[in-house]
Amino acid sequence: MNKTVGEIAAMVGGTVSGDASVHITGVNGIDEAGPGDLCFIRSTQYLPQLAQSNASAVLIQEAPHDITMSAILVPKPDLAFGMVLKHCETLQLQHPQGIHARAAIHPDASVGEAVAIGACAVIEAGARLGDGAIIYGGAYIGRDVHIGAGTIVYPNVTIREETEIGSNCVIHAGAAIASDGFGYVPMDGAWMKIPQVGRVVIGDDVEIGTNTAIDRATFGITRIGRGTKIDNLVQVGHNVHIGEDCALAGMVGIAGSAELKDRVRVGASAGIKGHLCIGEGATVAARGGVVKSVEPGAVVSGFPAMDHREERRVMVAQRRVPELIRRIKALERELEAVKEQLK
Amino acid sequence: MNKTVGEIAAMVGGTVSGDASVHITGVNGIDEAGPGDLCFIRSTQYLPQLAQSNASAVLIQEAPHDITMSAILVPKPDLAFGMVLKHCETLQLQHPQGIHARAAIHPDASVGEAVAIGACAVIEAGARLGDGAIIYGGAYIGRDVHIGAGTIVYPNVTIREETEIGSNCVIHAGAAIASDGFGYVPMDGAWMKIPQVGRVVIGDDVEIGTNTAIDRATFGITRIGRGTKIDNLVQVGHNVHIGEDCALAGMVGIAGSAELKDRVRVGASAGIKGHLCIGEGATVAARGGVVKSVEPGAVVSGFPAMDHREERRVMVAQRRVPELIRRIKALERELEAVKEQLK
Amino acid sequence: MNKTVGEIAAMVGGTVSGDASVHITGVNGIDEAGPGDLCFIRSTQYLPQLAQSNASAVLIQEAPHDITMSAILVPKPDLAFGMVLKHCETLQLQHPQGIHARAAIHPDASVGEAVAIGACAVIEAGARLGDGAIIYGGAYIGRDVHIGAGTIVYPNVTIREETEIGSNCVIHAGAAIASDGFGYVPMDGAWMKIPQVGRVVIGDDVEIGTNTAIDRATFGITRIGRGTKIDNLVQVGHNVHIGEDCALAGMVGIAGSAELKDRVRVGASAGIKGHLCIGEGATVAARGGVVKSVEPGAVVSGFPAMDHREERRVMVAQRRVPELIRRIKALERELEAVKEQLK
Repeated sequence: MNKTVGEIAAMVGGTVSGDASVHITGVNGIDEAGPGDLCFIRSTQYLPQLAQSNASAVLIQEAPHDITMSAILVPKPDLAFGMVLKHCETLQLQHPQGIHARAAIHPDASVGEAVAIGACAVIEAGARLGDGAIIYGGAYIGRDVHIGAGTIVYPNVTIREETEIGSNCVIHAGAAIASDGFGYVPMDGAWMKIPQVGRVVIGDDVEIGTNTAIDRATFGITRIGRGTKIDNLVQVGHNVHIGEDCALAGMVGIAGSAELKDRVRVGASAGIKGHLCIGEGATVAARGGVVKSVEPGAVVSGFPAMDHREERRVMVAQRRVPELIRRIKALERELEAVKEQLK
Repeated sequence: MNKTVGEIAAMVGGTVSGDASVHITGVNGIDEAGPGDLCFIRSTQYLPQLAQSNASAVLIQEAPHDITMSAILVPKPDLAFGMVLKHCETLQLQHPQGIHARAAIHPDASVGEAVAIGACAVIEAGARLGDGAIIYGGAYIGRDVHIGAGTIVYPNVTIREETEIGSNCVIHAGAAIASDGFGYVPMDGAWMKIPQVGRVVIGDDVEIGTNTAIDRATFGITRIGRGTKIDNLVQVGHNVHIGEDCALAGMVGIAGSAELKDRVRVGASAGIKGHLCIGEGATVAARGGVVKSVEPGAVVSGFPAMDHREERRVMVAQRRVPELIRRIKALERELEAVKEQLK
Repeated sequence: MNKTVGEIAAMVGGTVSGDASVHITGVNGIDEAGPGDLCFIRSTQYLPQLAQSNASAVLIQEAPHDITMSAILVPKPDLAFGMVLKHCETLQLQHPQGIHARAAIHPDASVGEAVAIGACAVIEAGARLGDGAIIYGGAYIGRDVHIGAGTIVYPNVTIREETEIGSNCVIHAGAAIASDGFGYVPMDGAWMKIPQVGRVVIGDDVEIGTNTAIDRATFGITRIGRGTKIDNLVQVGHNVHIGEDCALAGMVGIAGSAELKDRVRVGASAGIKGHLCIGEGATVAARGGVVKSVEPGAVVSGFPAMDHREERRVMVAQRRVPELIRRIKALERELEAVKEQLK
């Protein structure tokens, strides 16, 4: 993107406060934004964050008196921001169009209107691709898989048999959906495989990162709810149920049969033990290792994960242990002297 | 699966104790089993676990008097469980059959009886596929790779040149076998690559998870022993030797030249430093970071990993450090008062 | 490799000290070398390491009087070692040659001299492959991607649109370059996607491991500098800038917009928070979690990462907490007795 603040204001029907000639080259969240970026705030509650932001301009209802960046005043900053995002998308590379002669599409697959399928993509029998779905070259869509309208599947993705994926999802390169879960019972020192004959069901508007693995259920369903976003190299075990609008950062691991309610956030490299429940709106900090269920709205961190404030307190205290050892030694010495004196 | 306890008893030649009309929809291990699942116990040693299980029915030699779930009495519960598993497998999706016209098979490759090869799979020169092997669409089998009879290779798997894989293995989508190990020597501030010209040899009945990486040896062999099961997103470095019937959970990392003897278990996200030896039957707990060799049969946890009971003791004590700081302060204050009094 | 020490000495123009008949089967760094391996040391500074090495022979300027292994004396051991490496490379498997009839190459792609492209590789419009580039079967090269001369792209790699990759790079199986970064803003409880319309630019002589993910920038560029080596299953977030000659071990995670200056080393499974700067030549130990910027040359470890020596000190002290609890209890008891006595 390369537009002035004035041009963007015209696009969203707003008025400029400050320098309208500032060049905007990108958009981003208030914390991530850097020079050249436009951000937005929904309410005055975010003014302290705005003061810390490196953004060059902000979409806002009313400009605070001490603002240093350019502001575009609009009644609904979030909607205006959405308009700018839509504009940015149109800048993005064209997706492939049409069906490549080298795609391998089974005659019993069903392909909707305006679907794109790249070279060397494989579509197995019984697969159904919704209108406008985009299957990149080298992707594999297994038997009886349903892909919703407008969903994008990038190269070298594997979606195994009987998976259902909603509309407007994005599955990034190398992700593998519905591989067998890791289930065995020990027998005479060896491992006997539990057949993994369940499925994966993914709601609308879900994004799944590169080389992420979502295992099929043993029996039943592994489920990812509408609107949930999953980053790269994440492991979601068999029979996990993830709610709506959750966010899982990179390298997170969710063990089998765990349940994440709606709007749960999990930081990078955190892990959640099997069979636990993470309550609605709860947050697991980066690198946290959760070994018991978490209450709705709670924020936990550390390993084993506990209340985040408590964990910080323990963490800070632990750094003082070398000092405590010295103080205990001094106490022992002095007490000895006192006892000597009392004899 | 959807059968009554009575129907399953008939199938395995057992007798029912309790309600024979209970519907069974799945099978699982005693701890993982939920409502609708059938589990088994081999001996009375597992009765306490059975009392905690959520299974709906159990295969067992003799029903305990206080059992609340339905029981199917058989002389050998593990064999009967195996029969039920076999039945479940037949429910599972059909694998592809035959050789797809769009598979790219080098004329110098050798393909056994009843092999299936999917569309856009690539089989290079000198590759040998054993009878009944199943190579899914999009998989890559490199030069001079041998794949044993009955082994399944899922889509987008890469098996590079000269690898040997045994019979009845399962290699899940996106796994990469025999990529170069990570070996360099520093020279004048840059990294000089050590050629990685060894191989990978994998025994029979091995399962390798989605997007897992097993690197080829620098020289010599990276080896995975018969019956070992490896979960998703695991890293096995060059020249690692893993014994038989081991189990590695998701996101485990094994650095170069480490050795795991038979029946080692490694929990999720644990890591093992290079050149160490993990003794037979040892267990590394989830998230453990092993920095020295582990004795046979030992259970270690934490980072740096130590004896699990010791680690728990230290962990619990560490939480008390904020309290200890207060107690030390109190002691110092009181000792000062005592000293004052003694003057 | 299978040569005697004498044969290698002849190859590099050196003279043998010790047994010239010793068989050499491999080469490696001084610490990693085992029996049968040849290593090298550049200066006498490494003599203590050499004394610990399991190598069978060493390239060295002058043999120390107490050396037990065979030595090949040469004026420049590093250059001689490079000659031996070159010889080893010629032992390595032949890469595929020529362009396979089943490769899917867009007519608007440009292919240099002596390029190899395997079966079912996909080369999109506008892609440019430099002379001698090798694209294995099943790899995906997106629209307008530039691949430098001599670069090797292994099977099932995905390189998305507009990426630039330098000369003599190696991209291992399953790696995914230029997938969308993980960028959203919360809006009314849901996640609104920030378009990820930047690119990835990778310098010469870079190696990228199996199933590693390098995300494209939100706007602008995610950059990997010349000579940097990245191991398997690593996550590099959007807008990260990595300098030259860095080394990132397996399973490392680098969050968005972090900067690593030249010659930074990051140990296995370490993580670096977004927007931080890791100074030139700094080292992050394995499993470290970096939450604030690191000075040039510093060595940090632990989570949150701190100076490595300090972290070791704290770690060792923490193990003594159970003992400290006992000592504090004893102090309290004895002080109580003293106070009793003083009454």
